[in-house]
Amino acid sequence: MTEQKEHSPKMKQLIELAAELEDLGHITALMGWDQQTNMPPGGAEERGLQSSAIGRIMHEKFTSDEVGKLIADLEEEVGDLDAETDEARSVKVAKRQYEKQTKVPLPLLMETIQTTTMAHEAWVEAKTKSDFTIFKPHLEKIVDLRKQYAALFEPFDHIYDPLLDDFEPGMKTAEVKEIFNKLRPQQVELIQAIAEKEPPDDTFLKQHYDEERQEIIGRYVITRFGYNWKRGRLDVAPHPFTTSFGQGDVRITTRYLDDDAGSALFSTMHEAGHAMYEQGVPKKYRRHPLSGSASLAIHESQSRLWENLVGRSKEFWSFLYPSIQMLFPQYLSETSMDEFYRGINKVKPSFIRVEADEATYNMHIMLRLEIEIGLMEGAIDVADLPEIWNTKMEEYLGITPPNDALGVLQDVHWSGGMIGYFPTYALGNLASVQLWDKMLESNPNVPDEIAQGKFDTVLGWMRENVHRYGSKFEPQEIMLKATGSKITPEPYIKYLKDKYSEIYNL
Amino acid sequence: MTEQKEHSPKMKQLIELAAELEDLGHITALMGWDQQTNMPPGGAEERGLQSSAIGRIMHEKFTSDEVGKLIADLEEEVGDLDAETDEARSVKVAKRQYEKQTKVPLPLLMETIQTTTMAHEAWVEAKTKSDFTIFKPHLEKIVDLRKQYAALFEPFDHIYDPLLDDFEPGMKTAEVKEIFNKLRPQQVELIQAIAEKEPPDDTFLKQHYDEERQEIIGRYVITRFGYNWKRGRLDVAPHPFTTSFGQGDVRITTRYLDDDAGSALFSTMHEAGHAMYEQGVPKKYRRHPLSGSASLAIHESQSRLWENLVGRSKEFWSFLYPSIQMLFPQYLSETSMDEFYRGINKVKPSFIRVEADEATYNMHIMLRLEIEIGLMEGAIDVADLPEIWNTKMEEYLGITPPNDALGVLQDVHWSGGMIGYFPTYALGNLASVQLWDKMLESNPNVPDEIAQGKFDTVLGWMRENVHRYGSKFEPQEIMLKATGSKITPEPYIKYLKDKYSEIYNL
Repeated sequence: MTEQKEHSPKMKQLIELAAELEDLGHITALMGWDQQTNMPPGGAEERGLQSSAIGRIMHEKFTSDEVGKLIADLEEEVGDLDAETDEARSVKVAKRQYEKQTKVPLPLLMETIQTTTMAHEAWVEAKTKSDFTIFKPHLEKIVDLRKQYAALFEPFDHIYDPLLDDFEPGMKTAEVKEIFNKLRPQQVELIQAIAEKEPPDDTFLKQHYDEERQEIIGRYVITRFGYNWKRGRLDVAPHPFTTSFGQGDVRITTRYLDDDAGSALFSTMHEAGHAMYEQGVPKKYRRHPLSGSASLAIHESQSRLWENLVGRSKEFWSFLYPSIQMLFPQYLSETSMDEFYRGINKVKPSFIRVEADEATYNMHIMLRLEIEIGLMEGAIDVADLPEIWNTKMEEYLGITPPNDALGVLQDVHWSGGMIGYFPTYALGNLASVQLWDKMLESNPNVPDEIAQGKFDTVLGWMRENVHRYGSKFEPQEIMLKATGSKITPEPYIKYLKDKYSEIYNL
Repeated sequence: MTEQKEHSPKMKQLIELAAELEDLGHITALMGWDQQTNMPPGGAEERGLQSSAIGRIMHEKFTSDEVGKLIADLEEEVGDLDAETDEARSVKVAKRQYEKQTKVPLPLLMETIQTTTMAHEAWVEAKTKSDFTIFKPHLEKIVDLRKQYAALFEPFDHIYDPLLDDFEPGMKTAEVKEIFNKLRPQQVELIQAIAEKEPPDDTFLKQHYDEERQEIIGRYVITRFGYNWKRGRLDVAPHPFTTSFGQGDVRITTRYLDDDAGSALFSTMHEAGHAMYEQGVPKKYRRHPLSGSASLAIHESQSRLWENLVGRSKEFWSFLYPSIQMLFPQYLSETSMDEFYRGINKVKPSFIRVEADEATYNMHIMLRLEIEIGLMEGAIDVADLPEIWNTKMEEYLGITPPNDALGVLQDVHWSGGMIGYFPTYALGNLASVQLWDKMLESNPNVPDEIAQGKFDTVLGWMRENVHRYGSKFEPQEIMLKATGSKITPEPYIKYLKDKYSEIYNL
């Protein structure tokens, strides 16, 4: 109970402010969740205004001179404390956010919120009709607004840095480029080696699997993983996502495809990985400056770990496959566990990022990063995006999208102004294997446990080494603490090579 | 387009303020809807804090001295205008709300929000376990807070007046008592006369009707009524309700009972009546001081009109019954339309208000009003409520609830601090018949239209005579304008007598 020590009056003030902002942030999250799961079309306009209202209130509350003074006073107050105490870190995190937010003029913030609300509706329509011209003017405005935003943070090493830093605190564009430059050739080499081999059969997945039974399996699996239903729920949305309205209410969504049985199950495992992270942050960080997660890459390390390291492993399927086979005898009675395992791990360059296999996924990210950097540097025009997209797809994956819905329009992110977000997906992949390897060092029994349907060692290790820090540390700090190394591509490359060498006889 | 004239700068300010408050109010409504339809139990605590946060922000925004000054300035500005212009009424409505809200100290408001959030959870548990003692301390606190609230409005004619006025602007306790005193003896007499007759058979309703088919019918019926699905949706919740997040998103809920086929359908028609009112307010009152509805009684007049005057009429069933019979042949193939009509209009004193028939419904309300007045006057102790409830049930309806879940714990209202709300249900019943009669005067063909499944004359008349005013007029003003009379019990009594004389051969 040493955690429960009395805070100074100013520290209490900071915590109260964080609590208020967290309440408002969670309200915004609820509005977003509802928009994607339930809202009728008529609600869009006022929902945008409602989001703006909360955005403005949060901005005003946080960027006042009093808050600046409070943080300055607190910096002095915690100056003598160990830099790793919660108090010192709370002040550091608050200062970082305050300095970022006070740089942003309210009109720019309001214009960004309103632009992205409208852009989202335009993107939905553009994607439905596969017509980039509908989305183009909105994206042009968003790119312009993002440039204005980045300019507020001059001087910077790179114009992309301020955007990346919003999602990956402390990370630099140069750092990401260096990691990706190491990763790219090895990943391309692997994909080429695989392409020369006979692909496994996966036609058994491309059938009409009953949706209700798919849902039963999804719920069963994540319950065993440790997802807490008293503090969450699962719904259907066009794009799977996780959202939190507080540690007591962390929801996930999935969607059931008519012609791909793997999609819903793997996305459910993925989102449950995100959600278990949010559910696993200690209660002391609830409504607190150190609430939430370290970064999107760390978040993605958790989702990819459950989806891939666990969910696409041989051990996992030796546990689960008999149940699946029982529920879908019409498709699986003739398929052995080994054939099934190879099928779900089939490598095939494809158009859609979220459906990509582990070997090709990062290529989708590198393509997006290059485009985003080009847009921000001014080297790429929005108008040329469809062509550039398709050229890069051909170059990296050897395929050309037949339309923009399967190409440049596939992702929601840019419509929400989220430029700088994509690299965190690839960084999360790398981090997931680093964490996994480290966990295995001290827990070599985990694969056997998984084969028996036991997942508590995995979740417990993540709780202890990742979740328990909330947002106290920057992502690279967490990786150093947990694994002894910053994010690095080698373990991921080794993991992919080992896995696919066995499956493809490389 | 004379409506589009330019407003004065101060009037613009008032409208902007109203818009902001409306956004925040709709956000609160979303949190409430989600709590009742989707929220996992773990979300309750933080949801309460989130609601408080918005409550505080709204209170602070609205009760500032600047707003007081703005309203005072505007009063002068509109002094020369016709009192029925939107401008003059906007100022009047804003002044009324400002004067009420500035009287309430923020700590009392915060304590009320927090108390009722906890009380709601306690009520759910108490009702589930049928144990009043779980809810008792919460209700005691609520009654105490409501007394403190009422005391802020001294001097008053009656301590219940300030509570009633929150739901029924301008209405006095004495007025309601007078109406109810006329209503009570006639309604009791009718119930007694009916009790002496042979009741119609309604066993065909008390069967297991397939839920999916029930939903199909509900959706079909309210679509024909004119409920706009692009601006709404239907979900399942333990207690049927309507909620609005703006004119573009007015949602309803229902619940499907396993042993009563009428429940879901009639509650769906009822809630659609509420929702069509909200959907029918003119767009010029969106995010405006005159947005929303006149009062809860006027709201209830719309819901009861669609549920009862339309939905329990012979004409309506001559239109709908063949479809119902086709969907449920196993229960209805031997039941004639006339038997069905008599069955759904069976009068039987029962424990649960929301399931009560038209003849007994108002007795449930009078019982509650007497208890509420007793609580506020201090003549009744919360501890004695279960006994008092049961005694009054025996006195009014000749039945005694076997447990408190079927008695004093059945309604959600008190847990939310909503004392003063119940009388609006009975007032709405009375108003529904007054409006109906007036509509028939100029549209004698409506019963024939209903028999053909046409409802646009009814909806059109309500749009024109009720919906189009938003909250511009007080409830009694609307009734005067629409019908030439304030709310009065005679038309309702006549309606009941005519209807049941035919069904029961009185």
